[in-house]
Amino acid sequence: MQGEVSMTQDIEKATEDGAFGITERLVSDVKDAVDLGDVAGVEALIDPLHPADVAHLIEQVDGKDRRDLLEACKGGIDGEVLSELDDKLRSQVIGCLDQAELAEAVKNLESDDVVDLVEHLQVGQQEAVLDALTDTDRALVEQALTYPEESAGRHMQVELVRAPEHWTVGDAIDYLRSDDVQLPEQFYHLILIDPRMKPVGYVTLGRLLSAKRNVKLADLTESTFRTFGVSQDVEEVAQAINHYHMITAPVVDEDGRLIGVITIDDAMMFLEEEAEEDLLRLAGVGEGSLSDRVYETTRRRFPWLAVNLVTAIFASLVIAMFEEVIAGLVALAVLMPIVASMGGNAGTQSLTVAVRAMATRDLTSANVLRVIRREVLVGLINGVIFAVVMGLVGIVWFGSPMLGVVIGVAMIINLVVAGLAGTVIPVVLERFGIDPALASGAFVTTVTDVVGFFSFLGLAALWLI
Amino acid sequence: MQGEVSMTQDIEKATEDGAFGITERLVSDVKDAVDLGDVAGVEALIDPLHPADVAHLIEQVDGKDRRDLLEACKGGIDGEVLSELDDKLRSQVIGCLDQAELAEAVKNLESDDVVDLVEHLQVGQQEAVLDALTDTDRALVEQALTYPEESAGRHMQVELVRAPEHWTVGDAIDYLRSDDVQLPEQFYHLILIDPRMKPVGYVTLGRLLSAKRNVKLADLTESTFRTFGVSQDVEEVAQAINHYHMITAPVVDEDGRLIGVITIDDAMMFLEEEAEEDLLRLAGVGEGSLSDRVYETTRRRFPWLAVNLVTAIFASLVIAMFEEVIAGLVALAVLMPIVASMGGNAGTQSLTVAVRAMATRDLTSANVLRVIRREVLVGLINGVIFAVVMGLVGIVWFGSPMLGVVIGVAMIINLVVAGLAGTVIPVVLERFGIDPALASGAFVTTVTDVVGFFSFLGLAALWLI
Repeated sequence: MQGEVSMTQDIEKATEDGAFGITERLVSDVKDAVDLGDVAGVEALIDPLHPADVAHLIEQVDGKDRRDLLEACKGGIDGEVLSELDDKLRSQVIGCLDQAELAEAVKNLESDDVVDLVEHLQVGQQEAVLDALTDTDRALVEQALTYPEESAGRHMQVELVRAPEHWTVGDAIDYLRSDDVQLPEQFYHLILIDPRMKPVGYVTLGRLLSAKRNVKLADLTESTFRTFGVSQDVEEVAQAINHYHMITAPVVDEDGRLIGVITIDDAMMFLEEEAEEDLLRLAGVGEGSLSDRVYETTRRRFPWLAVNLVTAIFASLVIAMFEEVIAGLVALAVLMPIVASMGGNAGTQSLTVAVRAMATRDLTSANVLRVIRREVLVGLINGVIFAVVMGLVGIVWFGSPMLGVVIGVAMIINLVVAGLAGTVIPVVLERFGIDPALASGAFVTTVTDVVGFFSFLGLAALWLI
Repeated sequence: MQGEVSMTQDIEKATEDGAFGITERLVSDVKDAVDLGDVAGVEALIDPLHPADVAHLIEQVDGKDRRDLLEACKGGIDGEVLSELDDKLRSQVIGCLDQAELAEAVKNLESDDVVDLVEHLQVGQQEAVLDALTDTDRALVEQALTYPEESAGRHMQVELVRAPEHWTVGDAIDYLRSDDVQLPEQFYHLILIDPRMKPVGYVTLGRLLSAKRNVKLADLTESTFRTFGVSQDVEEVAQAINHYHMITAPVVDEDGRLIGVITIDDAMMFLEEEAEEDLLRLAGVGEGSLSDRVYETTRRRFPWLAVNLVTAIFASLVIAMFEEVIAGLVALAVLMPIVASMGGNAGTQSLTVAVRAMATRDLTSANVLRVIRREVLVGLINGVIFAVVMGLVGIVWFGSPMLGVVIGVAMIINLVVAGLAGTVIPVVLERFGIDPALASGAFVTTVTDVVGFFSFLGLAALWLI
């Protein structure tokens, strides 16, 4: 218990600056100890930390410091720290461990954590980890790896507690408390199964403990109970866990037999990852982590910028159609980016709302027409307001009421189109099976740029020149 | 059990189209029944649904349909459905219930759900809900409402199970199974407290059930244990729950005494809300939901567009400085949006990565300089590549090698500045206590627009004219 108490104190110290995580002080202390080659000092700093914090620390330190830190921890990196590291660092860290150290590190992990650990490793490293497992665990992990990436089967935990549906509370308690039963490290439910191994309900341990011995388990089941298929998308399962406030989601095979569970803590991680993915995709960043180096970051961002260049050139071609008009009135060149920029912003607003609402299933074919109508009307109203403002700017700045009318009308047209494109484009992309978060941005800004420049310069050609 | 079975079938039917939620078929069936005034039919469709799905259904139907649907459910809306509704609809639905119906609806909710329910209601409605509670529950809810919005105290659940730290497994099991103890609806841990009511560790029910009666609870505690202050930000607690894979987070008052818990299912909801907020703020949308009407949506989006208009006009002033240059070479007007657009995109990439990394605490002062250096270098490399491409475009399209050089150099300058501004601006805003997700976008695109136009037109003035 001595260790426990000092650990709590260390954590309190570590969280002075925030609710969780490691302090900047700690990072610099570790760096100093590493620089001094003070292995005992490094260990003293790292030992009291939660594995998630150790992983975070390794991610925070850089290049040579990181290598020295890993060197100092050698043999001391445990499996949970490996689980918490991001994919690329994990592979780097595993590369530093010898077979015995690796075996030691992975032996206490649950099967789903081992799967997470190995699924993105290169074949050689994967084999090394699998070799470090017992035969039973290895079979479980290899089985999980046969399911598609991102499926419930790939990410489920197979350690769970089954109970026949006819059992009473007394039967269940006696079973759980008997000597010869091997229970999972963490579990929160008993899952009731019928004679064909199909899950039919679950009982929380809290309810089990509060009930009389002669009560039937079947009378204590939770109304949130539902099952998920082994090949179902794991993010969908995670969304369902969030939607129905479940703690454990039972996973069944093709014949409906219970073969695993997705737990809420993993679901939380999947949802966080999904939200991050959507955010980064909408911004044209794609995957990647903060610990990526310059080369990888450049390579990841390049394609998005290249797409943007093509769309920007496309917009420039529209401007080029009106070169003579601009030569006749250079004020048009000054004002035209305003129309395009306002359209781009309004389009991004509509688009983001639509993409998010599709992710949370709030936008469905039941209400899509209403949402499109709303976005168009919002564009129209904001368009009219900004048309008046820009009309006045046109008059005051350039002394030309007609220029004011042109920019005003172009603004209305572009904001209406922005509302329409911002909603319709992601919906259509999704119908065609294309991730709307990934592709909508480029389409929408192309539309608003082209419409913005064309309507403004076109109206100017008609009414001003 | 008959009801249970048919419920499961209904859910299976309801999830044919997806992992969770309601089908479009169901929405249209409900609409049809509502249109026919078939109250029994509506009830038959709604009864088997989970409260979260009923709330979702109410959100999906529109205007008059929604009023008719609520009319048909009258007296049948239960408290959990109210909890699941979004704030504005909830207030509308509560407005339709009389005092007796309201009392019936809220009487079985946990204290934290009642707090969520009432915190955004108008005073009159809040009073009506509070009047519907028992005196004890009312006192708990009123206590929670004294804590700041978004604090752990406001959102904690006070129903929890304490155990003295000196107890054995046998003591705890006997206590939980005794007749005169009132246990919470859902609980997953025993929280150990010292004689001064300070929490010192927790034991999961699974571990409790697997241990011998004479084992001390103190020997079964989880290493994830840590406590949170009552006034701490609830999103921070949620992030810690995610980071440390906790199921229950104990909340303590100023004297360190245990007064409640934040549970993982609530934490998951807070994190989802936070991710959504960041996404919508980055896109300049702010709050708001899909069920908002045109007026509210217009009003919410307007300020962001207004800010964008000001920054766009600012960029136009920069262009206006070079009117004569453009008049001398209209090709500049055709090409200048490309430079600004590429800068804006690259800036948004850097910005989104930085904002997200700050939210997940991956970007700290320990690595901020490294990240800034990386972003600048990425801008430089991508800038050079696109400079070459655009240089060629300039030559091929306009037959002017010098124009190619001008746009190429301007591109490099703007992408480097984009990387710098995209990282430094959110970091500086956060130092000043301003939410970087909220304000960074406008600043960054202003910088990239101004720098893009100024460098391109300025270099053109120097080298071309």
